[in-house]
Amino acid sequence: MKKYDEMTKEELLGEQRQLQAAFDAYKAKGLKLNMARGKPGSEQLALSMPMLDVLNASSDCKAEDGVDCRNYGELSGIVDAKKLFGELMGASEEEILISGSSSLSFMYDAMARAMLKGVLGSDKPWGAYPKIKFICPVPGYDRHFAICEFLGIEMISVPLYADGPDMDMIEKLVAEDETIKGMWSVPKYTNPMGSVYSDETVRRLAKMNTAAKDFRIFWDNAYALHHVYKDIQLLSLLDECKKAGNPNRVYMFGSTSKITFPGSGVSYFVCSKENMDYNTKQLGMQAIGWDKMNMLRHVRFFKNAAGVKAHMDKHAAILRSRFDAVIEALDSELASRGVGSYVKPEGGYFVAYKAENGCAKKIVALCKDAGVVLTNAGATHPYGKDPEDAYIRIAPSYPSPEELKSAMEIFCVSARLATVEKLIG
Amino acid sequence: MKKYDEMTKEELLGEQRQLQAAFDAYKAKGLKLNMARGKPGSEQLALSMPMLDVLNASSDCKAEDGVDCRNYGELSGIVDAKKLFGELMGASEEEILISGSSSLSFMYDAMARAMLKGVLGSDKPWGAYPKIKFICPVPGYDRHFAICEFLGIEMISVPLYADGPDMDMIEKLVAEDETIKGMWSVPKYTNPMGSVYSDETVRRLAKMNTAAKDFRIFWDNAYALHHVYKDIQLLSLLDECKKAGNPNRVYMFGSTSKITFPGSGVSYFVCSKENMDYNTKQLGMQAIGWDKMNMLRHVRFFKNAAGVKAHMDKHAAILRSRFDAVIEALDSELASRGVGSYVKPEGGYFVAYKAENGCAKKIVALCKDAGVVLTNAGATHPYGKDPEDAYIRIAPSYPSPEELKSAMEIFCVSARLATVEKLIG
Repeated sequence: MKKYDEMTKEELLGEQRQLQAAFDAYKAKGLKLNMARGKPGSEQLALSMPMLDVLNASSDCKAEDGVDCRNYGELSGIVDAKKLFGELMGASEEEILISGSSSLSFMYDAMARAMLKGVLGSDKPWGAYPKIKFICPVPGYDRHFAICEFLGIEMISVPLYADGPDMDMIEKLVAEDETIKGMWSVPKYTNPMGSVYSDETVRRLAKMNTAAKDFRIFWDNAYALHHVYKDIQLLSLLDECKKAGNPNRVYMFGSTSKITFPGSGVSYFVCSKENMDYNTKQLGMQAIGWDKMNMLRHVRFFKNAAGVKAHMDKHAAILRSRFDAVIEALDSELASRGVGSYVKPEGGYFVAYKAENGCAKKIVALCKDAGVVLTNAGATHPYGKDPEDAYIRIAPSYPSPEELKSAMEIFCVSARLATVEKLIG
Repeated sequence: MKKYDEMTKEELLGEQRQLQAAFDAYKAKGLKLNMARGKPGSEQLALSMPMLDVLNASSDCKAEDGVDCRNYGELSGIVDAKKLFGELMGASEEEILISGSSSLSFMYDAMARAMLKGVLGSDKPWGAYPKIKFICPVPGYDRHFAICEFLGIEMISVPLYADGPDMDMIEKLVAEDETIKGMWSVPKYTNPMGSVYSDETVRRLAKMNTAAKDFRIFWDNAYALHHVYKDIQLLSLLDECKKAGNPNRVYMFGSTSKITFPGSGVSYFVCSKENMDYNTKQLGMQAIGWDKMNMLRHVRFFKNAAGVKAHMDKHAAILRSRFDAVIEALDSELASRGVGSYVKPEGGYFVAYKAENGCAKKIVALCKDAGVVLTNAGATHPYGKDPEDAYIRIAPSYPSPEELKSAMEIFCVSARLATVEKLIG
């Protein structure tokens, strides 16, 4: 197939006419499709329905140490859940806390507390500085960036590559500036690129010299178990931080939102014992404990770590055909014409399409016009501003296979049209 | 029975000898009893066990408007839950938000956000003042005070009477000082006094002139439905605030922690629509939504407001015998001898015993020595300091009836012993 950048102006004009006609035909169908958020589809949700039967009116509701999960207490969660999710996250019982249904809320709260009170080792609350800063690998997760923006934390964008963020740049930045207090990371099947931080990246993050002695990496391991094609092993940042003599550098987060039910799962927080003692003392001011019944429901449903992994294989099997459809469309319709690029993800919930510079907003607008809702262009970057106007996050999990096929057809036509129009000038 | 203050020194010395012997005998038993926290007992927890059957593997899991409760979304909660708890809390669907399992966490977060960002109508974040203050009726709830202390909010104690806090004092304070930003309240079956704010108190709170235009009453209606002897009607502070032209003055909180399962229920937040719009915008930075499956479980279990009320009658029937036991012991052993006083509660979870000044810590220590754990003396006051050293919170719900009987015997002997020793000097 002829690449767009090899076409003559006339060929491009011909292509534009054809694409416009195709686009108009899609638009006339009046479809309503959504590839905006990483929501599991109904087939995936069905996998966890048996969990609703594990606790019933005749259950004992006791944790393995006899704690009655129906009553107050156990700020850090029930021991059964700490063992199960600790094993999956590579943490001892002292290094994990099981909280409510949202890891996002827990991350926000950890950041808010740091602003109000500081973290272990802080000289003063982060909010007491005229300005503090956070490193944000881009493309990244819009909700992380929203937390920083809300709390007035300045964001420094650092490019994310297939093996992790630009470590040379990060090492330089954090070594020089005491007001850079931390960094966001989605280390495995990154949101939205789907790549995994290399061992080398993890080790450099653990070892690097930071001017701030209270530097914290917010390690949002949201997709720790969420392989689609290949279960890639991510090195434990907590272990590497311990080895490097920086055990308190990392806060790790995760949840079962994309394992069982989004918004109705359990979330977990992992850090060094010293960090945990500091945090649980503060958390004791705002909570007596989180939903232990839901913890027990999860533990009894999965039984053990192997149970979770077997469950995640079922998710992967469902997601694979959807990712196949996206990748097939991107390859056959766009890559073949030299229109944009993407990194093939091995897991997670997204494909990050990198359009020709200056085309992302246009493509998203065209899609919307034809009835396909995508995440806003720019959402992958701090302050919603992608300086190249290139990244688009595609979330293939929620639409039905038929809807996804239609949505990708419209996406590819929109991407081609925007690119042709850019080339015509 | 002869009152202690009518006894001669010799009579008191005789009494002391007898009490010491009785105390030593209790101590020798090596009991382990707990009347410290307002935890429902096992009979109460059993009332909600059928709730575990209402959602099962074949449930549709849809809210009445078709929302799939198993997936992301609905920041303010499912409409079914907003209707049900809105009716119980006297709020329209626009005035209520259903959140996670803990109203305490939600209150903390509301306060933390006020410190970081201010509330609707604030000129600046509360944390940007050198010092802000909160009114705290005493005796009050230790966890409210802990939130203020943690966030560096100065607490001003105001005496609580049987019809509510000292309104003359409050009106004067808030009219003069712009840095008094709000007030804690447990208005119905107050923690720990068990009394209810009068209509007059509620109206004065709604109408009073506050120097701070961003004044907020944190109205923790934790025991709204928790009558024991008599279901007293509390005036709606939101309605009264609207009538008085101060619709944004109040944040109301509640949960099902002492209706279904503590720590595994749902909580709610009620305020004016304008306040709600402001808050939900901020909450959107930290959450996608709370546990909708648990909301649905609650709604389908109770069906409607009448269902909740019928359920609470069952709780009351269980609690009544326990409150009877406490009151009987206090009357026969202490009041008859003129030893301390208490207000008979009509509902809630506590009896507040007011010892002779300077005796509360001693009584709590004696009880502990004999195996009965009580809430720390002082916990009823800001900074854990009761200037009179008089108040002790008794929580009769959790121990078994037999344990409660033993615990109250020990409590009464300890109270008498401490009082006698004070009188002997």
